[in-house]
Amino acid sequence: MPEPRVDLNSDLGESFGSWTMGDDEALLALVSSANVACGFHAGDPLTMLRTARTAVKNAVAVGAHPAYRDLAGFGRRFLDLNAEELYGDVLYQLAALDGILRTAGAELGYVKPHGALYNRIAVDPGQAAAVCAAVGDFRPGLPVLGLPGSAIEAACLEAKVPFFREAFVDRGYLPDGTLVPRTAEGAVLHDAEAIAQRAVRMVLEGVVEAVDGSLVQLRPDSLCVHGDTPGAVQMAAAVRTALTEAGVRVERFS
Amino acid sequence: MPEPRVDLNSDLGESFGSWTMGDDEALLALVSSANVACGFHAGDPLTMLRTARTAVKNAVAVGAHPAYRDLAGFGRRFLDLNAEELYGDVLYQLAALDGILRTAGAELGYVKPHGALYNRIAVDPGQAAAVCAAVGDFRPGLPVLGLPGSAIEAACLEAKVPFFREAFVDRGYLPDGTLVPRTAEGAVLHDAEAIAQRAVRMVLEGVVEAVDGSLVQLRPDSLCVHGDTPGAVQMAAAVRTALTEAGVRVERFS
Amino acid sequence: MPEPRVDLNSDLGESFGSWTMGDDEALLALVSSANVACGFHAGDPLTMLRTARTAVKNAVAVGAHPAYRDLAGFGRRFLDLNAEELYGDVLYQLAALDGILRTAGAELGYVKPHGALYNRIAVDPGQAAAVCAAVGDFRPGLPVLGLPGSAIEAACLEAKVPFFREAFVDRGYLPDGTLVPRTAEGAVLHDAEAIAQRAVRMVLEGVVEAVDGSLVQLRPDSLCVHGDTPGAVQMAAAVRTALTEAGVRVERFS
Amino acid sequence: MPEPRVDLNSDLGESFGSWTMGDDEALLALVSSANVACGFHAGDPLTMLRTARTAVKNAVAVGAHPAYRDLAGFGRRFLDLNAEELYGDVLYQLAALDGILRTAGAELGYVKPHGALYNRIAVDPGQAAAVCAAVGDFRPGLPVLGLPGSAIEAACLEAKVPFFREAFVDRGYLPDGTLVPRTAEGAVLHDAEAIAQRAVRMVLEGVVEAVDGSLVQLRPDSLCVHGDTPGAVQMAAAVRTALTEAGVRVERFS
Repeated sequence: MPEPRVDLNSDLGESFGSWTMGDDEALLALVSSANVACGFHAGDPLTMLRTARTAVKNAVAVGAHPAYRDLAGFGRRFLDLNAEELYGDVLYQLAALDGILRTAGAELGYVKPHGALYNRIAVDPGQAAAVCAAVGDFRPGLPVLGLPGSAIEAACLEAKVPFFREAFVDRGYLPDGTLVPRTAEGAVLHDAEAIAQRAVRMVLEGVVEAVDGSLVQLRPDSLCVHGDTPGAVQMAAAVRTALTEAGVRVERFS
Repeated sequence: MPEPRVDLNSDLGESFGSWTMGDDEALLALVSSANVACGFHAGDPLTMLRTARTAVKNAVAVGAHPAYRDLAGFGRRFLDLNAEELYGDVLYQLAALDGILRTAGAELGYVKPHGALYNRIAVDPGQAAAVCAAVGDFRPGLPVLGLPGSAIEAACLEAKVPFFREAFVDRGYLPDGTLVPRTAEGAVLHDAEAIAQRAVRMVLEGVVEAVDGSLVQLRPDSLCVHGDTPGAVQMAAAVRTALTEAGVRVERFS
Repeated sequence: MPEPRVDLNSDLGESFGSWTMGDDEALLALVSSANVACGFHAGDPLTMLRTARTAVKNAVAVGAHPAYRDLAGFGRRFLDLNAEELYGDVLYQLAALDGILRTAGAELGYVKPHGALYNRIAVDPGQAAAVCAAVGDFRPGLPVLGLPGSAIEAACLEAKVPFFREAFVDRGYLPDGTLVPRTAEGAVLHDAEAIAQRAVRMVLEGVVEAVDGSLVQLRPDSLCVHGDTPGAVQMAAAVRTALTEAGVRVERFS
Repeated sequence: MPEPRVDLNSDLGESFGSWTMGDDEALLALVSSANVACGFHAGDPLTMLRTARTAVKNAVAVGAHPAYRDLAGFGRRFLDLNAEELYGDVLYQLAALDGILRTAGAELGYVKPHGALYNRIAVDPGQAAAVCAAVGDFRPGLPVLGLPGSAIEAACLEAKVPFFREAFVDRGYLPDGTLVPRTAEGAVLHDAEAIAQRAVRMVLEGVVEAVDGSLVQLRPDSLCVHGDTPGAVQMAAAVRTALTEAGVRVERFS
């Protein structure tokens, strides 16, 4: 039997100018993939460059984390772009990060859209197709990381863009495999140890316990740990330790 | 004797969202090199993409036109960045345009800084070195187009970044070869025919008549025609026609 | 019988930095109310100040034209703000314009939201209430100008914010009194003479002919003429002339 | 003999969207005047509104803290605006904050420019005059808080704009009364107790010990305590406690 393995990804490089977000140094020592902000919701050029350099030093894969152009809202608010505008905005962000990565001796490994864009392309075939087109046109074969069973997965299949699936170790699941909405009870888990055991079970058993106690099947290529909450580093450390102790190898998917 | 030739360059792609600047379609049929805005002083992703596509169709070389991050001031106001910030801002802009160009089937031919940054690196060795470093680190061999005898020319020489010289067909020259300041009389010429003859003389005789009537030597690789003034297209057309009639081939320098 | 009268309003002050939009000078000689951009979708401080001064000189009423914070999209794209964010963004824009107006010897006469925000608050009670709350909290009695029969009209009634109704002289109407969607045929009229006669009929007869030939009742306090299209000035002039010749007095509603 | 008193001011409201800067709640319990960011270098509308409400609750005076339009640089980089542009940008920021304050039941007490603008108007008569003109035109009698002996003090005197002087409790002074440049040794003090005693001496004796041990005369109306550094709250608390224990009343100057 092959050694079980999984990727750990986190949103990083989300500082902007004089404002800091999260503890990138600490997280880059724990994850295997870093979703790096590209300047539209967060991330200035120097933050991108520094994050790239630290990722290289830690042998962490770097993915682009494109978003709606909304610094004031941190990309968390839906912006009703048409397909052409979204194509252009994603392309610009991929290009900017890609060039900075190459200059830093890194390479662009994948694309994981951010925030409201992530949520929108899970359900909106038009925006999903625009994102797919931008990724595929920018570099054939560049993979997308996203929510299983989503519109973006379907769009990637259609456009022959490689798609990898992620699961959220600290989010509640509904019996149908979708996430508990953030406004509902049970949306976010906080107990690091419970989260860590959940991560192990996701990888070794391919299941997660939904809010009603039923088991949901999933086969994640990557587990998302959040980087911008208090306790983020501790939670990521707990997840990584539990995985390692359970014999799971933490390894970049891309 | 080889056929005389020269490049014609113009600032293009300087629209932003719903706002239009200049007549890019018309100018792209006249110039051989397009300095394309990268989003910091002007130029949104779709404008960059469209400009790239039209440039490809017209076999026009595309250069990056990076600027200070100042949309409200159109990059025309000095912004006192430190060297690291300037390096990052230039790198980001080169990267963004470069990736969009590749997606459009074009390639990045050169870099010509914009506005206040152009003027600053003509005299500020620190900012000039930062721009040079960004260009050289982004892609070894990528040339810079700038003002002869300037700090940026010296920095390029030092950093082994190829440097090409431009002259301004519609700007007044002082006897020492520098430009008449915009606030002084004779700074800008307006007569299209006189400007066109001036362009021919720059190429065939390697001289321009200064405001005091003396002759200034110059050997321009490229002649800059402005794109954002009323009559820009007519002036560019007059220059191109005069050059062609004088037996000068208009050809990209990069 | 009292002399019939109506207000003519137009979106103005929508230049930004080096980019120009519309011919404000010409339109300010024709309209009685100017909806002035406040910096979020268009309008920099100097443009706001100049527009205010010209409005004062022409005895034109000035209204705030707040929008989503989206320069790149000119405020034409829906941005999913929560009620608190929208309240803050509207308040900020009202305040900025109001202070500039007072400094220029003008005063804030009313509020007409812009673009995607205008359309959204016509149908979204939550966003409509947030806009109403900002207007009412900023200055009790400050009126809103908007679409009759809309969510914003209802919200104003509820919040005791004075509401004035506008009609669009160059837009097609459906039999139920709503506008023909921009994507459908007949959405926008272009014949200046027909538009002018339509304006007269709106005021004198209180009706407009819908796309199916039926008559829609309306009692507009103000007629909107567009400022940012080619021919905008000619159309506004035709409307004003026709109104005057028909004995209608063009007069600010606020 | 009247009870000695002094104002304590701090830069507050410098968060932006999802990014936090400083501990405003804690500082607003310690200072008597809050310099509130207006959106150009920091400060979004909701942050402005919340800061205003907390200031009202704590009976803290609120001043506008206008800056260059440079979010990415936090207003710490000189931007070479012409006088008209600077006038407009300052006016816009004063107006936006003023309107939000009134809505929150507060009022605008004074103006203290931020960062690079603060430093520039200490030495640049042109920019100083533009700031003065904006303040005076916005509201006659509205005071400016700034560096004694600076160009802005002279400009205020000339323009009949009230001027109040501040001193920096944690900055090193040169024998001529100017600040030790940030790049030089002794520029910033870190020992809270020493800083607190320095504050007391500034008020009671009207002197500060310069880096060479000589005594510099000063008569500060207000003492600036920084809000955005680690230990800011502790330092402000130490200063306030020491002043109170020395019989100095901490009271708003405006």
